[in-house]
Amino acid sequence: MSRKNLNFGIIGAGRIGRVHAETLAFRLPEAQIVAITDVNREAAETLASHCNIPRVAATSAEIIADPNIVAVLICSPTGTHAELIVECAKAGKHIFCEKPIAFSLDKIDGALAAVKAAGVQLQIGFNRRFDANFARVRQAVVNGEIGKPTMMHLISRDPAPPPLSYIRTSGGIFLDMTIHDFDMARFLIGDEAEEIYTVGGVMVDPEIGKAGDIDTALIVMRFRNGVIGTIDNSRKAAYGYDQRAEILGSDGKIQTENCYPNQAVVSSGKSVYKDLPLNFFMERYTESFAVELQSFTQAVLEQRPTAVTGIDGRIPVVMALAARKSYDEHRPVRLEEVNA
Amino acid sequence: MSRKNLNFGIIGAGRIGRVHAETLAFRLPEAQIVAITDVNREAAETLASHCNIPRVAATSAEIIADPNIVAVLICSPTGTHAELIVECAKAGKHIFCEKPIAFSLDKIDGALAAVKAAGVQLQIGFNRRFDANFARVRQAVVNGEIGKPTMMHLISRDPAPPPLSYIRTSGGIFLDMTIHDFDMARFLIGDEAEEIYTVGGVMVDPEIGKAGDIDTALIVMRFRNGVIGTIDNSRKAAYGYDQRAEILGSDGKIQTENCYPNQAVVSSGKSVYKDLPLNFFMERYTESFAVELQSFTQAVLEQRPTAVTGIDGRIPVVMALAARKSYDEHRPVRLEEVNA
Amino acid sequence: MSRKNLNFGIIGAGRIGRVHAETLAFRLPEAQIVAITDVNREAAETLASHCNIPRVAATSAEIIADPNIVAVLICSPTGTHAELIVECAKAGKHIFCEKPIAFSLDKIDGALAAVKAAGVQLQIGFNRRFDANFARVRQAVVNGEIGKPTMMHLISRDPAPPPLSYIRTSGGIFLDMTIHDFDMARFLIGDEAEEIYTVGGVMVDPEIGKAGDIDTALIVMRFRNGVIGTIDNSRKAAYGYDQRAEILGSDGKIQTENCYPNQAVVSSGKSVYKDLPLNFFMERYTESFAVELQSFTQAVLEQRPTAVTGIDGRIPVVMALAARKSYDEHRPVRLEEVNA
Amino acid sequence: MSRKNLNFGIIGAGRIGRVHAETLAFRLPEAQIVAITDVNREAAETLASHCNIPRVAATSAEIIADPNIVAVLICSPTGTHAELIVECAKAGKHIFCEKPIAFSLDKIDGALAAVKAAGVQLQIGFNRRFDANFARVRQAVVNGEIGKPTMMHLISRDPAPPPLSYIRTSGGIFLDMTIHDFDMARFLIGDEAEEIYTVGGVMVDPEIGKAGDIDTALIVMRFRNGVIGTIDNSRKAAYGYDQRAEILGSDGKIQTENCYPNQAVVSSGKSVYKDLPLNFFMERYTESFAVELQSFTQAVLEQRPTAVTGIDGRIPVVMALAARKSYDEHRPVRLEEVNA
Repeated sequence: MSRKNLNFGIIGAGRIGRVHAETLAFRLPEAQIVAITDVNREAAETLASHCNIPRVAATSAEIIADPNIVAVLICSPTGTHAELIVECAKAGKHIFCEKPIAFSLDKIDGALAAVKAAGVQLQIGFNRRFDANFARVRQAVVNGEIGKPTMMHLISRDPAPPPLSYIRTSGGIFLDMTIHDFDMARFLIGDEAEEIYTVGGVMVDPEIGKAGDIDTALIVMRFRNGVIGTIDNSRKAAYGYDQRAEILGSDGKIQTENCYPNQAVVSSGKSVYKDLPLNFFMERYTESFAVELQSFTQAVLEQRPTAVTGIDGRIPVVMALAARKSYDEHRPVRLEEVNA
Repeated sequence: MSRKNLNFGIIGAGRIGRVHAETLAFRLPEAQIVAITDVNREAAETLASHCNIPRVAATSAEIIADPNIVAVLICSPTGTHAELIVECAKAGKHIFCEKPIAFSLDKIDGALAAVKAAGVQLQIGFNRRFDANFARVRQAVVNGEIGKPTMMHLISRDPAPPPLSYIRTSGGIFLDMTIHDFDMARFLIGDEAEEIYTVGGVMVDPEIGKAGDIDTALIVMRFRNGVIGTIDNSRKAAYGYDQRAEILGSDGKIQTENCYPNQAVVSSGKSVYKDLPLNFFMERYTESFAVELQSFTQAVLEQRPTAVTGIDGRIPVVMALAARKSYDEHRPVRLEEVNA
Repeated sequence: MSRKNLNFGIIGAGRIGRVHAETLAFRLPEAQIVAITDVNREAAETLASHCNIPRVAATSAEIIADPNIVAVLICSPTGTHAELIVECAKAGKHIFCEKPIAFSLDKIDGALAAVKAAGVQLQIGFNRRFDANFARVRQAVVNGEIGKPTMMHLISRDPAPPPLSYIRTSGGIFLDMTIHDFDMARFLIGDEAEEIYTVGGVMVDPEIGKAGDIDTALIVMRFRNGVIGTIDNSRKAAYGYDQRAEILGSDGKIQTENCYPNQAVVSSGKSVYKDLPLNFFMERYTESFAVELQSFTQAVLEQRPTAVTGIDGRIPVVMALAARKSYDEHRPVRLEEVNA
Repeated sequence: MSRKNLNFGIIGAGRIGRVHAETLAFRLPEAQIVAITDVNREAAETLASHCNIPRVAATSAEIIADPNIVAVLICSPTGTHAELIVECAKAGKHIFCEKPIAFSLDKIDGALAAVKAAGVQLQIGFNRRFDANFARVRQAVVNGEIGKPTMMHLISRDPAPPPLSYIRTSGGIFLDMTIHDFDMARFLIGDEAEEIYTVGGVMVDPEIGKAGDIDTALIVMRFRNGVIGTIDNSRKAAYGYDQRAEILGSDGKIQTENCYPNQAVVSSGKSVYKDLPLNFFMERYTESFAVELQSFTQAVLEQRPTAVTGIDGRIPVVMALAARKSYDEHRPVRLEEVNA
């Protein structure tokens, strides 16, 4: 086995940085982490020790300048993504960047231009495409198992809202949470939305409303191919993480269920019950995080296009802007209205 | 057991007339059918023979004039409902009338006024409220099992479209099909919608479009209490009748599944499969038809209000008119806009 | 519709007599109940009033002598079955008799001889064959959906034990409870058991042990065609009635689940739960009771063999005797050992 | 994080050796593989390269003699287990050994005596105890969620029989396949079987019969605490790996279902279907293999008893011998009859 190794540098040692570092260190034999950095040096050191990463770099610039590093994982806060993409691209590094690229289309377009100019590869961290459930739904559409799709419903509810401090800098529910579902909608249908209508409200926590955001949203999308779809988002689901999809087609439908920690069912004198679903994205999407990095690694090693490109990172931001505009103006909004 | 008997007359011996006649004849010992009529006399005679109904009346007027009849089931075409209600009310008969009362609010209001003036009881045939699944959802809401409701989704898809001839006189998908779901939405949430937004299209059969109707619709409702809800309607589902509800609340969710002819699951070398769900409303809602008539019979015998009153028959028509207006004008429509 | 009517007499107005009378009166238009009798005359009168039965006979002899009655339903206690079958047969009546025919093979053989001599039809009340779940399992076997059957498991647990007074005269768990499962085993596999091994104990209520019976049993059957099967019986299941079957075959398996009052699932902060299954045979097997009587009625009217014949009533008794002998002697017992 | 490291040597680079090596290398940061050996040196080298194992030893003796190695994983063929345990114990190594220890109780007792004399720790590879489903069943029993257990059923069917060459040296179905279920039965009930009765046959492949083995078996166990249990084993299940458990108790029951690659369900015009369950033990029990090694590693590092001790490795062999004797002699066999 003369498997080629891919040398990684990681920028960001927070929650998602840790997930990716563990995947590279323990799950992907063809990957090797050369160095990691974080503005919180202690976090970087702890993670380096845990994952046998040989070097903790002082800055992201140090990572990007390292000639030994071929690919960079950008796991730092959203505000830094676009600039880091530009720098990595200029340095000729292939890039895996967490979503979203940025909150503004200007910044995104700048980053994508740099990637194009450099001819490097870029993959955006829409991991859910690599989840076995959603991948199976897409497969059914592609295979024609359900005929021509006509309606789609996505349900995406978090177990509990993030801290208010996070909400305030998150870009709002559409850019922070729905953005995953916008990507999923495009991925499953294989076409682009042309119009979006949003209703929503503050039903979970009034403090979220005071912070200028909403916590409950229902988004209606009309696609160019005629498909009608909805996204149901809630910042809270008492029973845990709720991540489902359903597509109706001319010849049938496909539905997914949540994932559970076990398949045991108890019948007592009161009810027939099972344990709650996997609580949050770290448990629910564990495998998808590994598969997406494997996909990226293979794409770079084999010089193929990545599975989630820069434009796949841009369009969900357009959709999020349209969703917000629709909510604010209380009317359906066409995507071109916000896609200046 | 000195159970009081209730004497019924039936107007209409078509499909739903037959369902109700069988319930009264074979399932409800406290009910007795005195006479039946239909413009197709042969249909009335066949059903009379099947259900041991002693008399076939020549006209609905004969039914309504019969002093021996206490309650009248109106199972004739929609166009006749409002007038028959008025006549029954004037004759002091209690009335069970199939939905919808009429396609226009004027006619409905005339019928309801007559009912009020006469002091008779009226129940509208929204049978799904009496279905075990939907009744259980309502119970969960009332019990507080899921906390305060925030979002609701109704899925209501027919196995196949009705004949075009029927479509042309049906009043359109919103008055013919969605009307059941509008009733269900009000019933489950226990509050009134204030705004409706509709998207939809012709995805099943272009002929339905040529007839001026659509066959696929997604309706978004905003209720006065803040709940957001959707209705997913399709005139066709390749796998059979699809009738589901889901409500998210502050403390949990409740979901229903379809009903199946058996609980057997086969695992073969290719897949794990079960038989298709019950194919259409006659099988799916069999029990609910019996329970609704029992409920009506008891309400009349005990002089209690019926479970589905005249106003419950009126409001879904308002919602249907709003849904159509929203579809036509491509914008959210408030109910007061159509509720002149 | 020139449907022929079949005139019934009913002997026994207890629990099962009531179920059958209601089916005949309210569900089967082609059936007509002429008279009913019970040693408890008041019970017979109450049921007659409920089901519009015109006459309450003083004795079963009066029923059997009535020239207007073509078929007799025997719903009296087991001890009377064999003798009543003989008398009905001599009078030329077709017979539907509840299980078991008798506790002794001598009595059964006498009854079957009388039926054969008279050329009347006899159906034994193994209603579960007519249940949609078990019928679907049998269909899968017949269709070859699972290939050649190799192993079978039946689970049959009551929600709670019957009164001790009943237990004492029931003939024991194998003749009272397992007998249904012995019939099901033969029905599903379509072949005969040749050997039985039983383990069991008193795990539910020590009083049942003092009454000379056990309340928990596991029966292993080996069929002539090589199939191995088990029956799991318990007089108590805290969660309600548990009635399932599974067959493994060379090409797959088929499994059934219990039946539930509704298909709603609640996800709370503690668990994902649904209501308990249908509690007992009256709810669980409602439809099967109607279908079995319809089957009997059609068989008599069309002069076809019944679906559950006299020999189908005899063999499960042989199996029950073998099961008990195996339990007593703690060894596998061949059916011919008890089938003298 | 000053996590202590545990140095492992691995004997055997076959299928299960590879699973364990990957777990130690990629999933357990606290474990370190020092060396590996296999009689097939190439296999050992390939695996060493894949898992970054620094040294390939020429013989197991070299592994056992290595003072740097604290714990040895024995993944070689069953025939070598007992002797290797003895040698490891003499060398003071802690031992993780695949099941079964040996086919004869003499050899097992010799190995256990050596372990006891040396005071080292021994864990037997009954990985299924660490599977989330079975662990949840055990938890329900321990928690009293289902009251006092009365009956248990285990279903354990392989997707397809192993090669005949393997069957011939496997020790037979009871020592090769059922042994996992015997362990599971003891684990779930928390008590010992006292008597076993077996029926079975050759239903999958006549060649298996010619090799002196059977391929389909049903084993009935009676436990000291009165629980009755069954094990259903088949060398073939057309639909894949079937691994389920059900326990009935005085207050309820707990059942497990198989594990599936995804939770998607397709409703077509023909059936409602999902993909086949995970096909075999490598997919189905992936996590349990990692958890069992983690458990062993922690037990050694913390000097606690292992979760599956030597006696846990011995008793299932006794049960397997009793099961075979029961099959051969066609009668229930008490464990003491074979536990000389």
